[in-house]
Amino acid sequence: MVVTLPYAIVVYDVAAERTAKFLTYLRRYLTHVQNSVFEGELTEGQIVEVEETLESMLEVGESVMVYRMASEKYVERSVFGDDPMDDQQFL
Amino acid sequence: MVVTLPYAIVVYDVAAERTAKFLTYLRRYLTHVQNSVFEGELTEGQIVEVEETLESMLEVGESVMVYRMASEKYVERSVFGDDPMDDQQFL
Repeated sequence: MVVTLPYAIVVYDVAAERTAKFLTYLRRYLTHVQNSVFEGELTEGQIVEVEETLESMLEVGESVMVYRMASEKYVERSVFGDDPMDDQQFL
Repeated sequence: MVVTLPYAIVVYDVAAERTAKFLTYLRRYLTHVQNSVFEGELTEGQIVEVEETLESMLEVGESVMVYRMASEKYVERSVFGDDPMDDQQFL
């Protein structure tokens, strides 16, 4: 049996000096695909955990958006310009 | 017959002083949902047009990611923190 995991795209908008904190946390679960965008497969339990943790990390004026799909197969991604995935800073 | 339009999420990472240009362009087609995130329904033709235009607007070091789904029904959005949709600056 092939188990398909839910797919999540996380975009955060936080104070510049606080981005490292979010990067460090999100890297544990997801792939860094653009400056403030992460994506990847997460179990339902992990999604809840990530959402609750991110919410607790936010300060006034900051926000996080989480898009979820039942599977990665429902979403197609196109990248234009400098693909940050090619950049060492995103490894 | 109900026609379901494809749904797109656009995230851009451009130089701070050039964000206004992208905001102005993307507002013509999509809803501004976070600092550098837009989303909404687009026809296949509009998606091609938006992708080509955004690509032509990019400068070195900048990038745009476009996520597309066959319909909005495949994606669920959660917002944590200050929902920018409530903010006048996003109207």
